[in-house]
Amino acid sequence: MKAEIFSIGTELLMGELTDTNAAWIAGQLPPLGIRLQWVSIIGDDLAMLSDAFTRGLQRSDVIFTTGGLGPTQDDLTREAVAQALGETPTVQDEVVQGLERYFAGRGMTMPSHNIKQAHLIPSARFVRNRNGTAPGWWVEKEGRIIVCMPGPPGEMQPIWQEEVAPRLRELVDEEVTITRNIKTLGMSEAAIDEEISEYFGHENPYLGIYSKADGIHLRIIARARDEAAAREQIAPVEQAIVDRLGPYIWGYDDETPEQAAGQALAEGGLTLATLESCSGGFLANSITDMPGSSDYYKGGVVAATKEMLLANGVPAPTIDRHGTVSRETALAMAQAARASWGADYGIGITGVIGPEAVEEQPVGQVYVAIASLAGQRELEFRTPPRRIVIKRRVSNTALTELRKLIVSEGGG
Amino acid sequence: MKAEIFSIGTELLMGELTDTNAAWIAGQLPPLGIRLQWVSIIGDDLAMLSDAFTRGLQRSDVIFTTGGLGPTQDDLTREAVAQALGETPTVQDEVVQGLERYFAGRGMTMPSHNIKQAHLIPSARFVRNRNGTAPGWWVEKEGRIIVCMPGPPGEMQPIWQEEVAPRLRELVDEEVTITRNIKTLGMSEAAIDEEISEYFGHENPYLGIYSKADGIHLRIIARARDEAAAREQIAPVEQAIVDRLGPYIWGYDDETPEQAAGQALAEGGLTLATLESCSGGFLANSITDMPGSSDYYKGGVVAATKEMLLANGVPAPTIDRHGTVSRETALAMAQAARASWGADYGIGITGVIGPEAVEEQPVGQVYVAIASLAGQRELEFRTPPRRIVIKRRVSNTALTELRKLIVSEGGG
Repeated sequence: MKAEIFSIGTELLMGELTDTNAAWIAGQLPPLGIRLQWVSIIGDDLAMLSDAFTRGLQRSDVIFTTGGLGPTQDDLTREAVAQALGETPTVQDEVVQGLERYFAGRGMTMPSHNIKQAHLIPSARFVRNRNGTAPGWWVEKEGRIIVCMPGPPGEMQPIWQEEVAPRLRELVDEEVTITRNIKTLGMSEAAIDEEISEYFGHENPYLGIYSKADGIHLRIIARARDEAAAREQIAPVEQAIVDRLGPYIWGYDDETPEQAAGQALAEGGLTLATLESCSGGFLANSITDMPGSSDYYKGGVVAATKEMLLANGVPAPTIDRHGTVSRETALAMAQAARASWGADYGIGITGVIGPEAVEEQPVGQVYVAIASLAGQRELEFRTPPRRIVIKRRVSNTALTELRKLIVSEGGG
Repeated sequence: MKAEIFSIGTELLMGELTDTNAAWIAGQLPPLGIRLQWVSIIGDDLAMLSDAFTRGLQRSDVIFTTGGLGPTQDDLTREAVAQALGETPTVQDEVVQGLERYFAGRGMTMPSHNIKQAHLIPSARFVRNRNGTAPGWWVEKEGRIIVCMPGPPGEMQPIWQEEVAPRLRELVDEEVTITRNIKTLGMSEAAIDEEISEYFGHENPYLGIYSKADGIHLRIIARARDEAAAREQIAPVEQAIVDRLGPYIWGYDDETPEQAAGQALAEGGLTLATLESCSGGFLANSITDMPGSSDYYKGGVVAATKEMLLANGVPAPTIDRHGTVSRETALAMAQAARASWGADYGIGITGVIGPEAVEEQPVGQVYVAIASLAGQRELEFRTPPRRIVIKRRVSNTALTELRKLIVSEGGG
């Protein structure tokens, strides 16, 4: 079953209100076996809306709409559906009475404009809205479906869950879609593309590749008659990716670097302290985004000056010999963080955040070190010279490397 | 000039990634006098994309696209434009050389797939991308324009500001819309509404009120034949707001709390150090988001434990008497940060981040203190009990209060 979504309302085109309904509905469709192929945000314009419905019905089995069901002259969703289907709306007396009761219950008389919300066309049935005056419409004609819902998420989402999703489940006798997301760091998109190229370009299971702030993500999407069968289709592709990209994989599905590292620390009963300069607190802030992080994170220092490094246990000779921005200083920072706060693991991050080069090293040059009782791990790399990119990449790398070190040392 | 936006990528239809580019671009169009009439999110499907371009060109003067410019087989934006216009892409040697240099600068050889990004059709020119390998396309044919930009916001937004917006400004000769955004903190939406109620409900200039993570924003929107005339319409409304809400205003337009505070510090030649617990590094990370922050920010400590507070100069008797989560401890933290690192100003933040209550205080209870040589400022409040909301609100409040204190002491 192929679907599209219309988010309706001129205010969504003014750049001041962001439509979140389309993304929310999009997330509900794959487990129902419905494939979303188009999302449109359209203003309150009858001709344009009516045209959109006409075209949408040519290419999709079902159209979900949000917005445009209110009582004002701007609310044109019902009128546009009626026009596209060539039907005429009529007032439904029992709905008028329901609206009058709704307003009376709030000590008000119904404004005359609201009578619009009691209109129905022959192909439509009302969909109940417990949280507002605008009932939805469920329209069926010639094998195609249009579901019209109100725009406020607090009204739309309950309608979806209580009324729309159950009906769709009965109707759709199709395949389910299951997704597996594999997250890598350290290999370029093109290099990964080459390494596993034979898995791309297939319809089912489908393999997608996406460049994200925490690395390159590979997404396997399988459709099958049921969940177990879909997982069976995913398995061999996932296995091939793990075999070929193993060392670069740090997480799966919705996992974040701070979650992967936090889980390894928590499971091993281990603690962490940090000493960061160029990342400017991004690392500490990511770690503390995890609920329960105070069980394993002792805290950290954000050092913007050499004096602060010295005061926090980095030996002066190391800085004098190698500079503040060096592999050796990063390691000394990791060791100092660990020792100062009595943690099992210490992370040290130094680098050049810009705008100017430091110690003759370019903006984006970074050094990461992790120290444990038994071992250490250091790496250096160059990121694009944008402030937020540097902070994010170096912090994410530190956390994915921390997880690897914990796992290799038998913890986590 | 009528516009539409295509956000391109199957991942945007899977419900796992939300498109933010369309809303961002939508917000850029009114001041340029461009009217957005349609937004589409379309998957990586050549036939559907090509069809979308064909129809879009029939109803709009300009189409902006984001996404689908990467090096993989899924990236089909260029191919779809070429097909819709009936043109054939050819490889541009000088761009191939540029890509080779880009990869060489990172110590890599260019993967062969990247050659896609050097393709051009006769109606297109390249648009420079300083932050990635995918150049944009500026296409002009028969009076219609297509502007193709990469999907990552960190690449798209600079391209828009440096390349696209200036060219559009030259082209568009229509009524312009100018926006002035005034940011307040410390007054409720309803209180503001009462204070300046006579300015609401007008068509031009229009005044909107929006509740945001860093306070209540007031937005004045004026339309006029040119920028100067629009600014003249805005001026009296802005003046009235400043007169009535003055002490609660902390910034204008795109200004962030870290920018407002950073500017006050930089202008006064002043320095800052921080000691934060419940905000977990959000404060340090915000401060260091500003380029040049190392001129005024000495650094900070993120303390997750009482031991770390003690080790960083908070007196044990203060904690013993009042608890780690208290007004007195917040002030002691601010003073310790200031004294330990020899800064002009110190910020201390403590509170309950959750998931559990601490010292019988509920999740969301926070204390902020700022210390200077001459003065101090403390406040406490309760935020909604969501982790990210607590971190953001308490950090933003600390920075806006810092700015106020600097201004009141004659600095900044």
